[in-house]
Amino acid sequence: MKATYMFGAGDVRVIDAPDPVLVDPTDAIVRIVRACVCGSDLHPYHGMPKDAHGVSMGHEFIGVIEETGAEVRTLTTGDLVIAPFAFSDGTCVFCQEGLYTSCVHGGFWDMPGMGGGQAEAIRVPYADDTLVKVPGVDEESPLLPSLLTLSDVYGTGWHAATRAAVAPGDTVAVVGDGAVGLMAVLSAKQKGAERIILMGRHASRTDLGIEFGATDVVAERGEEGIAKVKELTGGFGAHKVLEAVGHLPAYEQAYKIVRPGGIISRVGVPQYEEAPVGFASLFGGNITLTGGPAPVRGYIEQLMPAILDGSVNPGKVFDRTVTLDAVPDAYRAMDDRVALKVMITF
Amino acid sequence: MKATYMFGAGDVRVIDAPDPVLVDPTDAIVRIVRACVCGSDLHPYHGMPKDAHGVSMGHEFIGVIEETGAEVRTLTTGDLVIAPFAFSDGTCVFCQEGLYTSCVHGGFWDMPGMGGGQAEAIRVPYADDTLVKVPGVDEESPLLPSLLTLSDVYGTGWHAATRAAVAPGDTVAVVGDGAVGLMAVLSAKQKGAERIILMGRHASRTDLGIEFGATDVVAERGEEGIAKVKELTGGFGAHKVLEAVGHLPAYEQAYKIVRPGGIISRVGVPQYEEAPVGFASLFGGNITLTGGPAPVRGYIEQLMPAILDGSVNPGKVFDRTVTLDAVPDAYRAMDDRVALKVMITF
Repeated sequence: MKATYMFGAGDVRVIDAPDPVLVDPTDAIVRIVRACVCGSDLHPYHGMPKDAHGVSMGHEFIGVIEETGAEVRTLTTGDLVIAPFAFSDGTCVFCQEGLYTSCVHGGFWDMPGMGGGQAEAIRVPYADDTLVKVPGVDEESPLLPSLLTLSDVYGTGWHAATRAAVAPGDTVAVVGDGAVGLMAVLSAKQKGAERIILMGRHASRTDLGIEFGATDVVAERGEEGIAKVKELTGGFGAHKVLEAVGHLPAYEQAYKIVRPGGIISRVGVPQYEEAPVGFASLFGGNITLTGGPAPVRGYIEQLMPAILDGSVNPGKVFDRTVTLDAVPDAYRAMDDRVALKVMITF
Repeated sequence: MKATYMFGAGDVRVIDAPDPVLVDPTDAIVRIVRACVCGSDLHPYHGMPKDAHGVSMGHEFIGVIEETGAEVRTLTTGDLVIAPFAFSDGTCVFCQEGLYTSCVHGGFWDMPGMGGGQAEAIRVPYADDTLVKVPGVDEESPLLPSLLTLSDVYGTGWHAATRAAVAPGDTVAVVGDGAVGLMAVLSAKQKGAERIILMGRHASRTDLGIEFGATDVVAERGEEGIAKVKELTGGFGAHKVLEAVGHLPAYEQAYKIVRPGGIISRVGVPQYEEAPVGFASLFGGNITLTGGPAPVRGYIEQLMPAILDGSVNPGKVFDRTVTLDAVPDAYRAMDDRVALKVMITF
């Protein structure tokens, strides 16, 4: 089959790879129908050391069950399924608490021995628990782009808002106008935030943010951007800040615009390890820092109904579609910021 | 009057200072009956640059109202009152939310123009809102030591447990066996924690911790201490970690013993600004970092009844009593760890 591999920074290729096969009796083989490129794929695209073997790419996909292991109980060939960006056994102590990304037996698609989602097919472990069947939708449905966002970006934005405990009346600031930032805006809106300030400087993206529920856009960065948010919030800052970038300046922006007693919820994968957390940044104002990899598996069923009934359309984050062969172009377009998020069709 | 001033690291003196006078009509003058030395007083005791004018010390006290400004409504001469370690107007947006330490007009006793609590008397701003009257207790009461803990350490330990949302069934680890750590143990116990692991290596203190509710004591530090906590928690770590020290190694210990999805609640004043918060420390496991200066004003009325009816005895943290003249010895004793917490009588 054809599959996308990265061999180092800027070096993405679609190659011939072995077809996936069942390994464990709880596995399923999924033929991929839609996939996409993630903002987090750009981190290795910038910094990955050369690797002759390459790493399989892609962690967001919708597909159709092709084959199931002997112990798969709830899925059958032909089912349309959504995969979260992490697989999980559904039974361990963390899965029971809803923290699927910390599953004792779980993992991520780019782990050794796994395959990526930017490929024609993939082996899915713990298929019954990892995958979510989409009832009444076929692979030609116009809902597929929105359903695909449940693999990662919508659930990740929802996680940001959930961990921040966004509630009616809140003023929420969202740092970052990428797909996750826009989904954080939508999620904050769904949770009843009164005011949603989107910090981003790409007009086409912030316009979509307004469509998703942003009430204000702050295009300025750094001190100027901080001053603008303060001005919009009576000098106090936002109750909740959803950080959807992952770079240190975004974190610094977050703690400088959050209100005393407020919450910073991070879902951008941090590209730093050390950061300010002392009296001057978090402690003095009783600021809470939360967030992490979103356990999107737990959010798929919760968020799907509003997609199926058409009341939300998160699939609008896809502003370009390519076939698998053109995936390297998709990375380039997203890296150059000419595409917000690229969908892959098969 | 006599008052305690610090003139630099290790240089604490009791000097003659002007008697406090009413400045604003909402002020009260309080004659101090009990005060104490705080673990956080030891931070400047170690690092304060020389200062010829000195800084007035002390932020924990119980006293008797001597005089009130024209606008003080609820307090009269002779009332016994507890002061929180920060004053607050009780009416601003943050006070209304219970975040008294972020009061728009509030502040701390050691600010310029204010006096310290390790003195014979003090001016208290916003007296109606800052002070809490203790009904039916006089200045000879044996309950005074326990009531004095409501000025800071008990409310601070309670804040750690509150911000960590300690709940029945939780496994809680407390880092630090100082007075605040011990009060965090008591607070976790009151909130129904099932297991309370106290990390500390002073047997006399950890014994008191056991009396307050600790179920396990880990005397080991660093990697050994981390391994011990993991062993006690099925390899997963504690649901909640209450950090009551403020030094970086305590923070590092905290994130290494917290369970995925867990909460680190800091109340030790951080003596560092930068610390690990990235994928390997907080983000990967969806760890929440919270805490800050405790808004103890909001906890005094809540915690007082159990002291008044004798069901808790937090005053046991005072293991030495001195008169005001001997306060320099009290600092030395606490710094040398021969005293846990020293009470001052007048």
